[in-house]
Amino acid sequence: MITWSRCGSAQDVIVTTVAGKGRLAYAVQRFNDMALLPESKLRTKIGTSSTAKDGVSRLSKVPVATIERHIIEAITPSVDNGRYPVKRIVGEACVVEADIFRDGHEIIRAVVKWARAGDQRLDEAPMEPIGNDRWRGEFPLAANTRYRFTIEAWTDAYASWQADFVKKANAGRDVASDQLEGIALIEAVSKRVRGEDGERMAAAVQRLREGDAREAVEIVSEGEFVELMTRFGERRQVNSYPGFFEIVADRPRAMFGAWYEMFARSQGERAGVPSTLREAKRRLGEISDMGFEVLYLAPIHPIGLTNRKGANNALLTDGAVAPGSPWAIGSVSGGHTAIEPSLGTFEDFDDFTAAASTAGLEVALDFAIQCSPDHPWVKEHPEWFRHRPDGSIKYAENPPKEYQDIYPIDFDTPERAALMRELLAVVMFWVKRGVKIFRVDNPHTKPIQFWRWLIDSVQAVNPEVIFLAEAFTRPKPMKALAKAGFSQSYTYFTWRNTKNELIEYFTELTQGEMPDYFRPNLFANTPDILPEILQQGGPPAFRMRLVLAATLSPSYGIYSGFELCENAAVAGTEEYLDSEKYEIKARDWNGAGNIKELVALVNRIRRENPALHQLTNLRFLPADSEHILFYMKNMDGNALLMAVNLDPFGAHECTVTVPPEVIGIAAGQSFNVRDLLTGAVYRWGEHNYVRLDPAVAPAHILRVEELA
Amino acid sequence: MITWSRCGSAQDVIVTTVAGKGRLAYAVQRFNDMALLPESKLRTKIGTSSTAKDGVSRLSKVPVATIERHIIEAITPSVDNGRYPVKRIVGEACVVEADIFRDGHEIIRAVVKWARAGDQRLDEAPMEPIGNDRWRGEFPLAANTRYRFTIEAWTDAYASWQADFVKKANAGRDVASDQLEGIALIEAVSKRVRGEDGERMAAAVQRLREGDAREAVEIVSEGEFVELMTRFGERRQVNSYPGFFEIVADRPRAMFGAWYEMFARSQGERAGVPSTLREAKRRLGEISDMGFEVLYLAPIHPIGLTNRKGANNALLTDGAVAPGSPWAIGSVSGGHTAIEPSLGTFEDFDDFTAAASTAGLEVALDFAIQCSPDHPWVKEHPEWFRHRPDGSIKYAENPPKEYQDIYPIDFDTPERAALMRELLAVVMFWVKRGVKIFRVDNPHTKPIQFWRWLIDSVQAVNPEVIFLAEAFTRPKPMKALAKAGFSQSYTYFTWRNTKNELIEYFTELTQGEMPDYFRPNLFANTPDILPEILQQGGPPAFRMRLVLAATLSPSYGIYSGFELCENAAVAGTEEYLDSEKYEIKARDWNGAGNIKELVALVNRIRRENPALHQLTNLRFLPADSEHILFYMKNMDGNALLMAVNLDPFGAHECTVTVPPEVIGIAAGQSFNVRDLLTGAVYRWGEHNYVRLDPAVAPAHILRVEELA
Repeated sequence: MITWSRCGSAQDVIVTTVAGKGRLAYAVQRFNDMALLPESKLRTKIGTSSTAKDGVSRLSKVPVATIERHIIEAITPSVDNGRYPVKRIVGEACVVEADIFRDGHEIIRAVVKWARAGDQRLDEAPMEPIGNDRWRGEFPLAANTRYRFTIEAWTDAYASWQADFVKKANAGRDVASDQLEGIALIEAVSKRVRGEDGERMAAAVQRLREGDAREAVEIVSEGEFVELMTRFGERRQVNSYPGFFEIVADRPRAMFGAWYEMFARSQGERAGVPSTLREAKRRLGEISDMGFEVLYLAPIHPIGLTNRKGANNALLTDGAVAPGSPWAIGSVSGGHTAIEPSLGTFEDFDDFTAAASTAGLEVALDFAIQCSPDHPWVKEHPEWFRHRPDGSIKYAENPPKEYQDIYPIDFDTPERAALMRELLAVVMFWVKRGVKIFRVDNPHTKPIQFWRWLIDSVQAVNPEVIFLAEAFTRPKPMKALAKAGFSQSYTYFTWRNTKNELIEYFTELTQGEMPDYFRPNLFANTPDILPEILQQGGPPAFRMRLVLAATLSPSYGIYSGFELCENAAVAGTEEYLDSEKYEIKARDWNGAGNIKELVALVNRIRRENPALHQLTNLRFLPADSEHILFYMKNMDGNALLMAVNLDPFGAHECTVTVPPEVIGIAAGQSFNVRDLLTGAVYRWGEHNYVRLDPAVAPAHILRVEELA
Repeated sequence: MITWSRCGSAQDVIVTTVAGKGRLAYAVQRFNDMALLPESKLRTKIGTSSTAKDGVSRLSKVPVATIERHIIEAITPSVDNGRYPVKRIVGEACVVEADIFRDGHEIIRAVVKWARAGDQRLDEAPMEPIGNDRWRGEFPLAANTRYRFTIEAWTDAYASWQADFVKKANAGRDVASDQLEGIALIEAVSKRVRGEDGERMAAAVQRLREGDAREAVEIVSEGEFVELMTRFGERRQVNSYPGFFEIVADRPRAMFGAWYEMFARSQGERAGVPSTLREAKRRLGEISDMGFEVLYLAPIHPIGLTNRKGANNALLTDGAVAPGSPWAIGSVSGGHTAIEPSLGTFEDFDDFTAAASTAGLEVALDFAIQCSPDHPWVKEHPEWFRHRPDGSIKYAENPPKEYQDIYPIDFDTPERAALMRELLAVVMFWVKRGVKIFRVDNPHTKPIQFWRWLIDSVQAVNPEVIFLAEAFTRPKPMKALAKAGFSQSYTYFTWRNTKNELIEYFTELTQGEMPDYFRPNLFANTPDILPEILQQGGPPAFRMRLVLAATLSPSYGIYSGFELCENAAVAGTEEYLDSEKYEIKARDWNGAGNIKELVALVNRIRRENPALHQLTNLRFLPADSEHILFYMKNMDGNALLMAVNLDPFGAHECTVTVPPEVIGIAAGQSFNVRDLLTGAVYRWGEHNYVRLDPAVAPAHILRVEELA
């Protein structure tokens, strides 16, 4: 155990006493740079001796800092210098880079030291210099778990000696003394290395004792011997970066997936009559046929009665009946760990998720931390809610708007610890039931650090659980939620329509630092957002936005009805008219004008083309029309070129440019591209004519077929 | 005192016991993010109660994290996220920015909390939002010392209530209950605020108790009252960034100064006869007349005899005599704290520095950590040097090069602590003697963290001391030395000659992150570097490089002889022929072809124009010739435009462009510029013709005189 105390006048030095070991040691703590040394490294050198001979006696008490000989900095990947974890996918290599150097011209080495969460023992992965004092190494992310890494560097005593020795010997200098130094170095190592390797070193020592400089140069430069000494030689002046960087290795679904959102109760055949989960199950085949991977259900918990909202969010008049909003969670039937009785039982739920799984669909649930006035917590834990001076509980409002059917949770309650544990228990309840994906409602209205704690806690036990943040808020809180741990995030995609907007936004999302922590999930619509372009552009706009969402990002989604091109809005808003949030709908899923075949085709193209499974491989290419967005995704030879007409109202043509180097061909070379939407094959070169008529097809998805 | 122990299973949580207070508290320590909370903030909430009702019993033991409610990140200024201090100049304001936000829509506030080194009490400076969740504030750097700052944010309970209250009241909602909340808020504050302010709040409470909603809105929105509540109101959920950022507030000379380097012994009238400091003193008036501010002396310490080098760095043959290199420090007359006897005594030194000071020149000394074989340390502290197997001490070498007259110090000695204290004592010896500027020889061959310790230790006592790093090495070690604390650094300027090279290098030096820690000092030549362009370009090149050095950076320097355009080199090298390093020179300082008048003029222009005292205000402007570099420096209306012909061999002409916005005029407006080198006045506009003949003048230094 280490006890800390501040050292009198030297404000930035902390003296640590290693209790029970009877020795003094010290560590330098500069303000922010808390280089807490491991006990084994604490120096024993804090002295009282003074060599100051000139009367500057106060200097004799200045503590001598620990000198870390190798500078290790600018480490990547890292988010906010290691304050938050970096996101990667299991199976990938974690490529680590850093600036590493030291004073003088000695030869240095470096390794990444890494471990899986829970492992105390650190593995080592070698790093190699790649120029300009930058080093690179990598370690495998073999498991769906968290990893940590740091970097260790040292001076290679043997290699440094060897390089100088050879230079001097070759210059004809007297190296007898240097040779003795080398012998001592090798001998010291040989004494602690067992077996054949040690014997080999001992033999070299013997030969060096007998050989002249010319022979010595040969012996100490021999490839295998140098390698041996590199492996076993003394790590001189070794030091590590003072801290670890964390990596979250998520399962692949955190990166790639097509989502379908629906209300379980609206999957029947009669409007106003809620479908049960058993009935909703009948829809699974069709959704699977459309090629989706994730089926996200709006909340399935009991819906409150008090202040229940009717059609179009209106307060119900006395006696009126309505199904209520699924986000008004909680009734006498239970709260967040119960199922709305009209949907069925837990057995029905299990049956539904099993059938979904069989159909290739993973069910995602909504996690909305809010309660109807009838939620059991309101009576059991009134201390978790906000109260008025008269003691009554406050409903939600964003003045002057009012949400009388919802009580927000009070994260400032003195009983926050119990509240947080209960919320964690809710998530774990469903995880135990097999749900491994949660779409989190409005996370930005809860403390950001609460999410970090919750997600860390869940993933410590179940690292396969994926959290999607539905935070439609300002850029920085959105990013902060992603840093806090959300596996995926909703985006501003629905409001990015022009070519410049799309290029600017997706450059930020896919290049630079954001992809290290923020994974976009592009919903083309949601129950809350029927974008203006869909309202006005009709089916051509739906087709265009589908292709954009599905090809710009490895994760995207649609809310059911999109495939029917439903676009009736409350005038002047993005709200659906007669929104399903407040009513039971019944749809003709095969109605005229549906785009199910296109959805299925696009999703099949996504599955079959690995280039669409990646985020950071997006690259915008020149197209000389402001209406046509042209971009590439390339992955191990799977090169796709997308041209999308952003204008649903008219045909546009332009010349698109494929710089030869981006697909790895020589200037002037031509190649075949196949439109995966139509099957047509074109002969392309650097500059190509494209015409897209939204009435016919909104886009090309061209695969480079053959380089000729 | 706080004792630390690791909490069993939860790997990233540390439980802290606040001894002697009988309570448990906790802090979250995530790998690198050591959020060590102040004792006063340690929560008392680590409980054993469990509300998990679903059998997931292990969750009941998951510690509940401290929730820091306000996110504070992306703080500027900072170097490597606070790992190293930021450099500023005393008298400046330290402008601090950060991203600050929280969940929900409450109104937040933030302050910079700052203190001078040694002060425990933190002052507060208000921050204001400047858009996109970015906040800005500033505090004064009134003293030449170090400062630290952090940021604190909180939720303004009153303002948040007031905003909602007014919105609801104005929407005609029943706000009686909200009004009671507001009364309670104000009353609580009024009880702890004394005097008039408290009375004013109490009066408001009284009026609110009696008033209706309309009156209440008036009362709680009244400007002065809102300000009062902002100042005294509850800081709800207050939290700080977990750590401090350090600022070094240097004296102005660390940023701005013209340096003149010379060998004290070569200031006499006869070659081969060393001048004393008393004789060298006679040169001060002339150097002062040339407008220099810093007089940097090559080492003045006793020079070793053993293996002394002769002319052009050759080993002396037996019996030959030579003055030796001043960098071979130490003889029977003493070491780093002694003066070479042929130069004089300490009294002579004091006399010299006093006379320099009177002439407006501050004397800088060389600090070269290396010894001649005759240095007293060799006998007193043989353990500070490297030894051969036979026990003899090693001289310096960079194989196959040998420096037999120099013993390098061994920073890996087990006696490093004593060694470091002695080196610190050497610097402090001269500081006590009045020397406040040190040019450090080859710092990159000593441990970088040693410099941090040394400079921190010196500046803790004498913050006015300036260190210039002579590190001609790779980019990253050069930057690391600057981060470690060097006030100024030598640069690659001598090897940057083309327009592209200069623009690229000076953009890096003056824009972005480098100026926060790295201050360039542009030496046009040094005793080690006679650049090829001076060798070949002759006087026109000297004039051109002088203007570049003096106007591109607020600090620059020349090594004596530059003003005489001395340019005889050892063939094929950058070494001076018959270098002054190994010989006693005598020069005719008024010889034909000297450029002393130009030097004096340029230095006067520098002093008189504040725009040339800044580093980050450099801006390159378009000039349509690859030979003409065109740039601006602007500072509070002092706008200078420099056009420099980079080709010493021929005249060039071009059109230079002054975008109207960079000097704050309307498009199409014209203005007068005065060439400070010639006095000529030109009428300029956005595009201007420039012709520069190196035989006549290498450059324009144009001051914008009048905007018409």
